[in-house]
Amino acid sequence: MNEVVDFINVNRDRYVEELKQYLAIPSVSALPQHAADVRRAAEWTADALRAAGVPHARLVETPGNPVVYGEWLGAPGRPTVLFYGHYDVQPVDPLDLWLTPPFEATVRDGEIYARGAADDKGQVFMHIKAVEAHMKKAGALPVNMKFFIEGEEEVGSAHLDECIRANKELLAADVVVISDSTMFDRGIPSICYGLRGLAYFQIDVRGTKTDLHSGSFGGAVANPAFALAQILAQMKDRGGRVKIPGFYDDVRPLGEQERAEWRKLPFNETRYRKELGAPRLSGEKGYSTLERVWARPTFEVNGLLSGFTGEGAKTVLPAVAMAKVSMRLVPDQRPDRIAELFEAYLKKVCPATVALTVTRMHGGKPWMTEFDNKYVRAAGRAIQTGFGQAPVFTREGGSIPVVSTFQEELGLPSVLFGVGLPDENAHAPNEKLDLGNFHNGIIASACLYQEIAAV
Amino acid sequence: MNEVVDFINVNRDRYVEELKQYLAIPSVSALPQHAADVRRAAEWTADALRAAGVPHARLVETPGNPVVYGEWLGAPGRPTVLFYGHYDVQPVDPLDLWLTPPFEATVRDGEIYARGAADDKGQVFMHIKAVEAHMKKAGALPVNMKFFIEGEEEVGSAHLDECIRANKELLAADVVVISDSTMFDRGIPSICYGLRGLAYFQIDVRGTKTDLHSGSFGGAVANPAFALAQILAQMKDRGGRVKIPGFYDDVRPLGEQERAEWRKLPFNETRYRKELGAPRLSGEKGYSTLERVWARPTFEVNGLLSGFTGEGAKTVLPAVAMAKVSMRLVPDQRPDRIAELFEAYLKKVCPATVALTVTRMHGGKPWMTEFDNKYVRAAGRAIQTGFGQAPVFTREGGSIPVVSTFQEELGLPSVLFGVGLPDENAHAPNEKLDLGNFHNGIIASACLYQEIAAV
Repeated sequence: MNEVVDFINVNRDRYVEELKQYLAIPSVSALPQHAADVRRAAEWTADALRAAGVPHARLVETPGNPVVYGEWLGAPGRPTVLFYGHYDVQPVDPLDLWLTPPFEATVRDGEIYARGAADDKGQVFMHIKAVEAHMKKAGALPVNMKFFIEGEEEVGSAHLDECIRANKELLAADVVVISDSTMFDRGIPSICYGLRGLAYFQIDVRGTKTDLHSGSFGGAVANPAFALAQILAQMKDRGGRVKIPGFYDDVRPLGEQERAEWRKLPFNETRYRKELGAPRLSGEKGYSTLERVWARPTFEVNGLLSGFTGEGAKTVLPAVAMAKVSMRLVPDQRPDRIAELFEAYLKKVCPATVALTVTRMHGGKPWMTEFDNKYVRAAGRAIQTGFGQAPVFTREGGSIPVVSTFQEELGLPSVLFGVGLPDENAHAPNEKLDLGNFHNGIIASACLYQEIAAV
Repeated sequence: MNEVVDFINVNRDRYVEELKQYLAIPSVSALPQHAADVRRAAEWTADALRAAGVPHARLVETPGNPVVYGEWLGAPGRPTVLFYGHYDVQPVDPLDLWLTPPFEATVRDGEIYARGAADDKGQVFMHIKAVEAHMKKAGALPVNMKFFIEGEEEVGSAHLDECIRANKELLAADVVVISDSTMFDRGIPSICYGLRGLAYFQIDVRGTKTDLHSGSFGGAVANPAFALAQILAQMKDRGGRVKIPGFYDDVRPLGEQERAEWRKLPFNETRYRKELGAPRLSGEKGYSTLERVWARPTFEVNGLLSGFTGEGAKTVLPAVAMAKVSMRLVPDQRPDRIAELFEAYLKKVCPATVALTVTRMHGGKPWMTEFDNKYVRAAGRAIQTGFGQAPVFTREGGSIPVVSTFQEELGLPSVLFGVGLPDENAHAPNEKLDLGNFHNGIIASACLYQEIAAV
């Protein structure tokens, strides 16, 4: 391994220059005008894999954007790693808040600024370069590897599950490795062993056929915006607990050991609150902030729209009111079951004076692996080598639904080893990646394959 | 009077043709691009007054659109009528729902379709033609008359109160006559003796500095859209009563006689509900629909906006949430007092986890006159002549704040005699005016001056 690590150290600057080319392709999957760019990014990814020593890397077509697939299977008897990532990126709006153009990667103070730097091109490229180092110095990888890099992650991965189900044999492996998450904090490398799931809905409430004059009709018919407020207000109690009957039935309780581990993490509540600009932190009674975000389900209102919302005053009695709401789920809650419970409760609390429609938008299962899983431990050792310190073990509040799909469809555990930082503006202007973490991440990735070979 | 009425009958068609010219001027006060049209409508109104026999009718400048002022004071010893109306109109959007162009007045089935037909050019013109008939046949009016016709009614009459206060002597009179309201129903001429007032607010709730990812942060901080729902839900109880402490303190109770009169009105709840398209009617417990709309105060949500409101799903934890809310007020509630009570209650019910801002948008006092007021009775007799039947006496749920200003600043009672119909689309596409009511209204107006001369 020393030769591989030396090679990586020698090539540090070249990696950054190559990454800049990757980041120059505006592969914004949400915007139709970037369709050709998205395809170009897929081809660039396949080219980079081939150049790294993964022959025949190719595009697998889907009804949407292609998946980049490549494999190197020259280590019979050794484990097979399935690497998952994505080459598409978020839109860049609002463009005027970017200090440098989002698709002209710029290095400032040891960080590279560009859309996709952290999420996820930088972290995908890190693994491609780790593979390249093994191939150049050893002529082989210590494990078998399959690359599965999609182009629709930022738009909900609509065709991914189907693609996985249709290619079960092709994707057969021992473990999934994903680098699309963040470290706990600067200088604290992390392995994520749990993700929350999601159940997302739109609620539409109608009071009357058309908007009415609030003077001429106010008082005679229900106001749908008020009815919506009444409905939403009944979703959580004063202690922050979700009131949907049965909501907590399948929630796996937090273990005492896990809580004790998290209490040791260097988490500063005051700094966190100040950075968010919140008057105070607030959540479910009886849980710490990390516990609330990582291990407890939530009910959130994501959007509200009704009536007149412009400047000034308009005395309208709205005909309709709309809310987008979602619940983050934790093991062992299931999105479908939660949707049933939610819809039943909605029907119960909705006043009979308005008409209610609920639409299921999308859902994703929560995921958790044991943090003494052998692959997770292998990743811990690799990070120790790459970053010079042992990682902390964390969960995340967000969702990566494909992790559940890999578990359910392919029976595979996942190792989530991310080198982003929480303040790297993944979906915001001035996205960036710390180049120190990028470099250490290449070393850690190279070591990770070695460690997995030995489990 | 017979000669005057005959003259009006003979000239029926000419009035419609002249009205078409008035309606052709797109005097939309809300849209800056129509500023020249608004001024043109003011000049047209002054011209029409002069042509009718009100010499020296002129524009009185304000910081906004001019007021048209004209007077005929040739009846010393007789009462002076101050006529109030407006020459500006509502915007026409959505234009594609109009069956004929909004500024090319078109007659179909005895109704004239155009923006401003009912609100309020048609009803202003009705009085101008009544004056003309008196002047042509008698060479004089039976009363002294002052015309005060504004151009900012559809945008909140921002400069009107100041203009009235600055011209108290000019506007001195005995009674105000306003034709800017509707009849109770087709075939049921009405006099309105009460209006609700208004207190309108914007509520802004902030949870954090910026929008956040609902996965990464959901559960740790308050959701401002949920907090807003909690706040709003506490404004009314299950029985439809407003929960703001002190809100009902100054409400004048409905008299038994008044309730008995209203029960006699031909009001069909089922038809009303079906026309509105409401699952059921709903309002304050213990009151009928007419009582709820005419004589009881309300709390309404006029608008809601927060977070993501587009197609699909976005897992945002919004930074802010906004509501427009308003209360309709009844005698003897005062908008300023209600604002104080509301703001105090808001502070009490707002969670400490969010920052709250309340903005007072605008207010108007409720108004009521006795329905045995001598001018109201005079109007009753005039309507009997014009429409061949006695009017019913009604209140309205809406607000015409200038009525209170006339009472408070000039000490004047108002007579609200409107010939619109409830389904004439005053602020909607395909606004229209029934030409039978228009014609009978000219006769009734001419008779009204005669009746007032005799009180």
